[in-house]
Amino acid sequence: MVRLGQDGQVPSDVIHRTCSAVSPLDSTALAAAVDRQARLTKPAGSMGRLEALSHQLAGMYAVCPPPIPAPVTVVVMAGDHGVHAQGVSPWPQQVTVQMVANVASGGAVVNALARQVGAAVEVVDVGVAAPLLFTEGVVQRRVRSGTRDFSREPALTRDEVVAAIERGIALADDRVGAGDRLLVTGDLGIGNTTASAALISAFTGADPADVTGAGAGSDARMVAHKVAVIRSGLARHTPDPTDPIGVLAAFGGLEHAALAGLLLGAAARRTPVLLDGVIAGSAALAARALCGGVTAYLVAGHRSSEPGARVALAALGLQPLLELDLRLGEGTGGVLAVPIVQAAARMLGEVATFDSAGVSGREE
Amino acid sequence: MVRLGQDGQVPSDVIHRTCSAVSPLDSTALAAAVDRQARLTKPAGSMGRLEALSHQLAGMYAVCPPPIPAPVTVVVMAGDHGVHAQGVSPWPQQVTVQMVANVASGGAVVNALARQVGAAVEVVDVGVAAPLLFTEGVVQRRVRSGTRDFSREPALTRDEVVAAIERGIALADDRVGAGDRLLVTGDLGIGNTTASAALISAFTGADPADVTGAGAGSDARMVAHKVAVIRSGLARHTPDPTDPIGVLAAFGGLEHAALAGLLLGAAARRTPVLLDGVIAGSAALAARALCGGVTAYLVAGHRSSEPGARVALAALGLQPLLELDLRLGEGTGGVLAVPIVQAAARMLGEVATFDSAGVSGREE
Repeated sequence: MVRLGQDGQVPSDVIHRTCSAVSPLDSTALAAAVDRQARLTKPAGSMGRLEALSHQLAGMYAVCPPPIPAPVTVVVMAGDHGVHAQGVSPWPQQVTVQMVANVASGGAVVNALARQVGAAVEVVDVGVAAPLLFTEGVVQRRVRSGTRDFSREPALTRDEVVAAIERGIALADDRVGAGDRLLVTGDLGIGNTTASAALISAFTGADPADVTGAGAGSDARMVAHKVAVIRSGLARHTPDPTDPIGVLAAFGGLEHAALAGLLLGAAARRTPVLLDGVIAGSAALAARALCGGVTAYLVAGHRSSEPGARVALAALGLQPLLELDLRLGEGTGGVLAVPIVQAAARMLGEVATFDSAGVSGREE
Repeated sequence: MVRLGQDGQVPSDVIHRTCSAVSPLDSTALAAAVDRQARLTKPAGSMGRLEALSHQLAGMYAVCPPPIPAPVTVVVMAGDHGVHAQGVSPWPQQVTVQMVANVASGGAVVNALARQVGAAVEVVDVGVAAPLLFTEGVVQRRVRSGTRDFSREPALTRDEVVAAIERGIALADDRVGAGDRLLVTGDLGIGNTTASAALISAFTGADPADVTGAGAGSDARMVAHKVAVIRSGLARHTPDPTDPIGVLAAFGGLEHAALAGLLLGAAARRTPVLLDGVIAGSAALAARALCGGVTAYLVAGHRSSEPGARVALAALGLQPLLELDLRLGEGTGGVLAVPIVQAAARMLGEVATFDSAGVSGREE
């Protein structure tokens, strides 16, 4: 189902078509997966959360056993935030463009981790403020150069939000069209934990103090200031959580909107998405508000130590695979979970059955 | 330091030499790792537990940055337990030999997961009760055909324990000599959670009811029976936790003793070991009782849902990387953590520094 916008209209034809294409998990493949699981040479239930994950993969791909989720691309959406002017980060905004270059040249943490798990990294400029330092290896989809300061005015227009969502959908189409069977969300942007906390408050009703953290290294005084800025933004914009375009327009960011589109586009193509951290969690809340069925295609990779991550994942009904106190973003927490998702599918596809291996069953 | 045996003598020359060769983490490499970590292009502390893990790896290998921990072998130690006669498992004992064949032919869960992460699997018969179904691909190191029933008599003689430990040490030597940079513990054996719970009680003083679980699928009645069997075994043998050879002789199993040897042998060769579940945890308690320095070389891969795993890891001071409700054993929980350990090393070695990438620092 596609949720209506504030004006009673669907936000755009592309978003409407994409949401309409999101199907529930395939019940036949799901049932076959549960049946096959019970015949594998291991005690029932002994592989814990990997068992349910393998069933979900069969349901997503609509085939049992599911293919191994590969190739994989980490899509790192980069954007800047006007609210940075309010002093919500200890880092200068120019770091966003420097880190885009670092990712594009393979030097960031997400690149090292992606090499470890055999994933590709695609960095997308969907709304960086400054001119790029260099463009080689950067996918250019800039909607505008950073958002407006949400503490003073809406961060984006509704049209800008729709454009960013559509670019995310198109990127998912491109990746799945190129053969990817698993996408990982990534993000870059100084100030993006402030926008994420505002979105999580707007969608879940959580108090800003409960979803705002140190981000890339704020001290206690700065965190308190972040909370105050978010609180005033919520008071100014009085966001309606049933109007996700409006919520994204109020607070941004462009990378959040683009990630929401990526999730919708992947789900419409029956392709799982591994969520990274708090930016992905807030984007997923927006995607779910547009299309409730999207969550069936989401796997939470890691619970960031940012407090908003816990609130967002709980609201989404997702339990993360990892909890390693990461709070970097870039997609790092999602990438680390890739082999676990692949292992779940491989288990269901490759492990011998009691019959085939000649292993005795339990004595009842 | 090597702990003395019950008779005031060191348990064997090989064990003595191995324990004496276990060195602390290299302080120079450790300090260099902490220094390098601070210069990587990310906020300080933002990679959470991967940061400390990468420092530990540098200290273990005594070089910074550490090499990527590969190649990797999962060493699956298989053994049987005389206490099976007391009805502590719903599975017939013949399943051990069937599962040895299943692992040797690549059909078990640990094989599928190892293929996913690029690890080799070596299955070792250190004490299976029955004749092997086939021997191809099985490393034959049988000390005896299963242990004795610890509810009636000591499971092993002290000499049998020493022989199993020495075989574990030799296997670690073989693997490290062949180039492996990371070992993962694996185990097979119907009844082995009962022996593990007895060992954990003996080494930590925990009540058997707090460390005994469903294993491969016991119901509540059978778990209560397991607890009673362990309680009577503890009363019969009155184990001395400062005499690890004596504790292993009381309860077995041969795979526990061999795994303890594997840990000692790897540590002596400055090679990290990823622990799997509750069998590995109980073996690690035995290894630590022989040589306190061994724990510096251990990484807990997964916290099994077996209750003894939590007690053993807490006593060892180890925090697991994963918690996915697995309770299969075989090494599955350890194997799933391999890419995380490798990613930690790769991060420290490959990520650009602020200087090299031209990324600005924080505004202070």
